[in-house]
Amino acid sequence: MPASRSATSLGPGLPARQQSLRDHNLALALRVVSDAGGPVSRAQIAGATGLTRATASTLVELLLAGGLLTETALLTAPGSGRPAVGLALAPGGFGGLGLEVNVDYLAVTVVDLTGEVVLREVLDGDQRGRSPDVVLKAAARLAASALATAHGRGLRVAGTAVSVPGLVRDGRHVRAPNLGWYAVDVLAALRRNPSVAALDLSIDNEANDAARSEVTAELRSFLFVSGEIGVGAGIVLDGVLFRGTRGWAGELGHVSVDPAGPRCRCGAQGCLEVVAGLEAVTRAAGLTPTQGLPHGVALTAAAEAGDGATLAALEAAARALATAIGGALHLLDVGTVVLGGAYARLAPWLVPTLSRCLQERLLWSSWEGPIVRPAAQGAEAASLGGARSVVARLLSEPERWLVT
Amino acid sequence: MPASRSATSLGPGLPARQQSLRDHNLALALRVVSDAGGPVSRAQIAGATGLTRATASTLVELLLAGGLLTETALLTAPGSGRPAVGLALAPGGFGGLGLEVNVDYLAVTVVDLTGEVVLREVLDGDQRGRSPDVVLKAAARLAASALATAHGRGLRVAGTAVSVPGLVRDGRHVRAPNLGWYAVDVLAALRRNPSVAALDLSIDNEANDAARSEVTAELRSFLFVSGEIGVGAGIVLDGVLFRGTRGWAGELGHVSVDPAGPRCRCGAQGCLEVVAGLEAVTRAAGLTPTQGLPHGVALTAAAEAGDGATLAALEAAARALATAIGGALHLLDVGTVVLGGAYARLAPWLVPTLSRCLQERLLWSSWEGPIVRPAAQGAEAASLGGARSVVARLLSEPERWLVT
Repeated sequence: MPASRSATSLGPGLPARQQSLRDHNLALALRVVSDAGGPVSRAQIAGATGLTRATASTLVELLLAGGLLTETALLTAPGSGRPAVGLALAPGGFGGLGLEVNVDYLAVTVVDLTGEVVLREVLDGDQRGRSPDVVLKAAARLAASALATAHGRGLRVAGTAVSVPGLVRDGRHVRAPNLGWYAVDVLAALRRNPSVAALDLSIDNEANDAARSEVTAELRSFLFVSGEIGVGAGIVLDGVLFRGTRGWAGELGHVSVDPAGPRCRCGAQGCLEVVAGLEAVTRAAGLTPTQGLPHGVALTAAAEAGDGATLAALEAAARALATAIGGALHLLDVGTVVLGGAYARLAPWLVPTLSRCLQERLLWSSWEGPIVRPAAQGAEAASLGGARSVVARLLSEPERWLVT
Repeated sequence: MPASRSATSLGPGLPARQQSLRDHNLALALRVVSDAGGPVSRAQIAGATGLTRATASTLVELLLAGGLLTETALLTAPGSGRPAVGLALAPGGFGGLGLEVNVDYLAVTVVDLTGEVVLREVLDGDQRGRSPDVVLKAAARLAASALATAHGRGLRVAGTAVSVPGLVRDGRHVRAPNLGWYAVDVLAALRRNPSVAALDLSIDNEANDAARSEVTAELRSFLFVSGEIGVGAGIVLDGVLFRGTRGWAGELGHVSVDPAGPRCRCGAQGCLEVVAGLEAVTRAAGLTPTQGLPHGVALTAAAEAGDGATLAALEAAARALATAIGGALHLLDVGTVVLGGAYARLAPWLVPTLSRCLQERLLWSSWEGPIVRPAAQGAEAASLGGARSVVARLLSEPERWLVT
């Protein structure tokens, strides 16, 4: 696979520059199609990019031959008698794979070039008693099996995005206190599986990847709060993930909600996740986390049954969430909170108290109150967001995938 | 004064477009001079902008005639025998004014086009017993007097940046609970003073303006924490102020540090500023805030004298700051904290505990520990940052200030 190339020098002259000019225009043409939301014609691509019709047609031929675009039914442009051939992203050709390693489950999602889900699988099981090597072997097997299925359906997977419940340093080493990992080279371990080794691998925090899966045309700026055993956040501003100076932004789980609170695995006291994380709430509700029932399923069942201790535990969790999220909103100034992971399932019990406390607490709530809503995606959100980020990368660098 | 014009359409053709092309190039030429850090020649401006020497010379003549540039001694370019006339920002012509309204003082700073301070004045006095009208009349008088002095020295003030200790809505209405202000139209009140009415006025939060004054070539990303009676923060990422979706980001003073803590003026409980703000710490130290000794002067004197209650109060404040700042760093992922306002003066007593607690608390401190340092500027930081923002705006739109 060729290395990524910069396309900043676009002037004519040297062959290398002509090459990057063409690469740049290929991505431009592809973006017109992917942004359109429906089939477009060669003439529309020329119009939107400012390229000549001849150049646009040449680029389209390359993208068709490479399997990135497909021709659709004829389009009739309004005000014009001549129908034109429609062009759309090819659904069957390329795809992206997202693989999530979390504290009590593994998940995989494959999407095609249009972002549609081709397959997904969630494998429940507490990973904490196991060595990183054993966990990552299982994750690699899950990815390899999804890859084989995708290949069997004719899909070419352009890359794999790995989501982890912790910090990633230098794009490699993972610190995830909830897993007992302090500097695990996750990608190196996954590459020991030959099927996975051939893939273009990238890695990010699970809340970041899950937040990506919630961005829509209407929802562009929000704080995504991912609640599982750990609690993380993804900060999205105008459709773009806010990553901080080293990629570690959004560690909401380690915001203090009670300076005298219980000791957290990170070493500090009263962190949000040790007070309102799934395990803490399950324990406060007097429930035993049942094998095979993660993601707050036991809590949800008890809450639905009206169990008093569970309702009280969820009420306390909502108050702790309001303390931490209130601080985050005061610092970041975003208007919408999206509750993801197990919090999405628990939203009916969390949202009323959380909303009320935020309304009381926020300095600007008489001007503009906060909006709190459950996430659209469930436990597969991170792997879905990761898979879509692979496809987004492919669409921005199509030349890497064309045999020319 | 002409309205601000957009310079995005730069193609030749219509006269209007030629006008914006020239305006764009004027700003480009000026930026070469302001970024250079020393005198540059017309040829260097042409080289750096890609303009012809003739065009560069024409623009330079306009900027010289308009009083934005000045000619300096001859420059001898290395490797060239021909000396050229040096060009620099004109120090005497234009300037910017910053006016800060804070809870227990008013401050004004005037800078010239090079950002150098021409005059500054801080007027101590608790503003809380007074109506917004009375406070803003006094502030307008302070600005008018500074303006008159600046004019007397031949400086033309291009605009005034007003800094306030609260939220600004729609560029106008100010909510500052510490002043008891909930929707005060600060600019309208200031404009009642005829000298101020003639000025181009803008308004921002004081911590934002103070943070601007701390940006240097070396310090590009940091959390600026402004500690006075209220506590605010300015978030600077790669030299740019992070403002959030509505300009309200950085309200660190209303991050909770103790859910069971004292009631804050905002209505919530245990906000950082009600625990570690100047008034709270002075009270905890058993001191009476002496009239005429604001900015933590009384606290500093007691700490220097080794007063036990004061040292204990500062230790508790540092711990509360660590709780709130630790949360902010976990969310924002910035590596440096700059303590400003009265916290800068109190830094010798705050920094050791704050640094140690952050080191213990931060998830990534074994990878990269936090850096905590006092601000370079004191109580005049916000008005200095505001005045410099006026000059920065002028340099980016020089055409508004040229008679052509």
